[in-house]
Amino acid sequence: MKQIESWLRGHEGRFAYIADPTNVFYLTHFKCNPHERFLGLFLFPDDEPFLVCPELEVGQARASAFGHEVFGYRDDQNPWDTVKKALSSRAASFNKVYIEPSTLPYNKTLALKAIDKQLEFRSIEDYLADMRNIKDEHELAVMKKAGEIADYAVRLGIDAIKKGRTEAAIVAEIEYELAKQGYSEMAFDTMVLTGENTANPHGYPGTRQIHEGDFVLFDLGVVIDGYCSDITRTVCFKHASDEQYKIYDATLQANLAALEAVRQGLRIGDLDGVARKVIADAGYGHYFTHRLGHGLGLGEHEQPSMSAANDKVLTTGMVFTIEPGIYVPNVGGVRIEDDVYLGEKGPETLTHYPKALQIIE
Amino acid sequence: MKQIESWLRGHEGRFAYIADPTNVFYLTHFKCNPHERFLGLFLFPDDEPFLVCPELEVGQARASAFGHEVFGYRDDQNPWDTVKKALSSRAASFNKVYIEPSTLPYNKTLALKAIDKQLEFRSIEDYLADMRNIKDEHELAVMKKAGEIADYAVRLGIDAIKKGRTEAAIVAEIEYELAKQGYSEMAFDTMVLTGENTANPHGYPGTRQIHEGDFVLFDLGVVIDGYCSDITRTVCFKHASDEQYKIYDATLQANLAALEAVRQGLRIGDLDGVARKVIADAGYGHYFTHRLGHGLGLGEHEQPSMSAANDKVLTTGMVFTIEPGIYVPNVGGVRIEDDVYLGEKGPETLTHYPKALQIIE
Repeated sequence: MKQIESWLRGHEGRFAYIADPTNVFYLTHFKCNPHERFLGLFLFPDDEPFLVCPELEVGQARASAFGHEVFGYRDDQNPWDTVKKALSSRAASFNKVYIEPSTLPYNKTLALKAIDKQLEFRSIEDYLADMRNIKDEHELAVMKKAGEIADYAVRLGIDAIKKGRTEAAIVAEIEYELAKQGYSEMAFDTMVLTGENTANPHGYPGTRQIHEGDFVLFDLGVVIDGYCSDITRTVCFKHASDEQYKIYDATLQANLAALEAVRQGLRIGDLDGVARKVIADAGYGHYFTHRLGHGLGLGEHEQPSMSAANDKVLTTGMVFTIEPGIYVPNVGGVRIEDDVYLGEKGPETLTHYPKALQIIE
Repeated sequence: MKQIESWLRGHEGRFAYIADPTNVFYLTHFKCNPHERFLGLFLFPDDEPFLVCPELEVGQARASAFGHEVFGYRDDQNPWDTVKKALSSRAASFNKVYIEPSTLPYNKTLALKAIDKQLEFRSIEDYLADMRNIKDEHELAVMKKAGEIADYAVRLGIDAIKKGRTEAAIVAEIEYELAKQGYSEMAFDTMVLTGENTANPHGYPGTRQIHEGDFVLFDLGVVIDGYCSDITRTVCFKHASDEQYKIYDATLQANLAALEAVRQGLRIGDLDGVARKVIADAGYGHYFTHRLGHGLGLGEHEQPSMSAANDKVLTTGMVFTIEPGIYVPNVGGVRIEDDVYLGEKGPETLTHYPKALQIIE
């Protein structure tokens, strides 16, 4: 918070209004999912911060690391009245309000305008994303743990593969075993796809049963102390066709080539290009339909977007995914995803489940 | 979609831009969770609708009930270029653009302004919410099924209560059993709280173990064909104190009184008042810290908000929750929640798990 206050002083900021629950957690360690209710952290260049949250969360907010004024509101009260009152007691030297434009709903900007129509909106999003991008030692330690549990979850899933078992049943086995050991928060809906369903990179696990010769694709992650892991592994059940071997190998080579290319200062779009070239050279360029990966941390998808169009460069301290995939309709798909930390001495993967093609008996 | 097109004709609309994935599903049956990626359904008063979604979702969009032009974009392309091009080929008689202001991020309004700075933003949100409020027969049938499975899930949870078992372990038991039977999509994070943790209406299940004399609170729901259920039941383990009986009874009487009061035309805020008065009369008014409930449907929280401040009235066809609660710090909390459909012949609960206080042996 001090860093943002100082940044606001350098950017003629009247205040910053942070509404994204993950950013609020990042800055205060106050965990709150307000759904459609109001949550706002207000930071000032030269004044005391305040937080507005639902009445029933006030206790947790005060118990958090925030350590400043917390205002609650009941469901029959308008939180903007509270915001207006609290703002009026703070200094107002400038008109620039720093917000998160890609997540802040339009009507919240209208509510701010109603308080003072002089306000001008600017973005603090990139600055926050850059802060969150660079992980400190504590964050890295937590993410290593999250990576370990993701490896373990893949192992659980592979152990649960059985002829005739459905995708949804395997998801249940994985999550049940994890939860029994206290890991009950998944980073996103656990994905287990089989056979031709693997050709849909965004499919939903359903009632399809496993058959011999199927690809089985696991894409999952857990949340440890707020931080996410995200791993994908693909295996074959009983046997694999020549084409399956070929698709798998091209994906694996793309994953390995990208991992090898990771270094401080490399343009992110070029890293995507490294993996894309391997897949194109293998003749599957048309079937690698998504970006190489995404940043990872408190969000399961955060900056940087590892896409061809990203001109930013890799920086020490970043954690991101490398997840090339090939999806051939009616045949199947393969994705191999690792979480990568770029340290002072080079890249380090946080996910370690073996990547050679496994044929499950 | 036809209904919205006709509404746009009556409201000088140039177009409606629907971005909320649930509203898109409601109108097209195309299920898409784009995360931070772009999704947009564009409807016109007198022209062909179009949909823009990530390239890898195009197949599912075309297979949906939408039946009009679908444009995909890759991760290295800017979806707004696609939007701009498609908009330029549609008629443009007015400047009013109808959006969802409470969910549409501010930067998407800037992107629209960049296409045409004459555009003025208006809300179509209330109109959509009113449409979604009123459930047809098919929706009601699906929600009845979702209610049944929620009842069953509570039964599973109660069967899983055992001395020393943790909250998280009971969550795992419930979800595992459900998933094995093909119900793997929960409406929200399943909540199982015990003992003093029940005094936090928004607590997270953790490693606390069940002790004799604990309240055990279940708040959960499932998703069936997109539609949510949401039930809360509270029981006692082994025995209950006089105060626990008193808190439970006040909550139950509030739940029953509100259910009894439901009728077409009643002001929603007054329904909240009915339950609140029962709890206040029992001496616990200060501990009922949230609204009476919320609308239910494709969203786990949708309009109407069943709060004291809501001046709208109950209307035939609505589905909403009635969930009074009393939360006494260091003692514990009780909440009893039902899903209610207001039919032609009066209210009908969709959740049926018994509500007399159960003492679990």
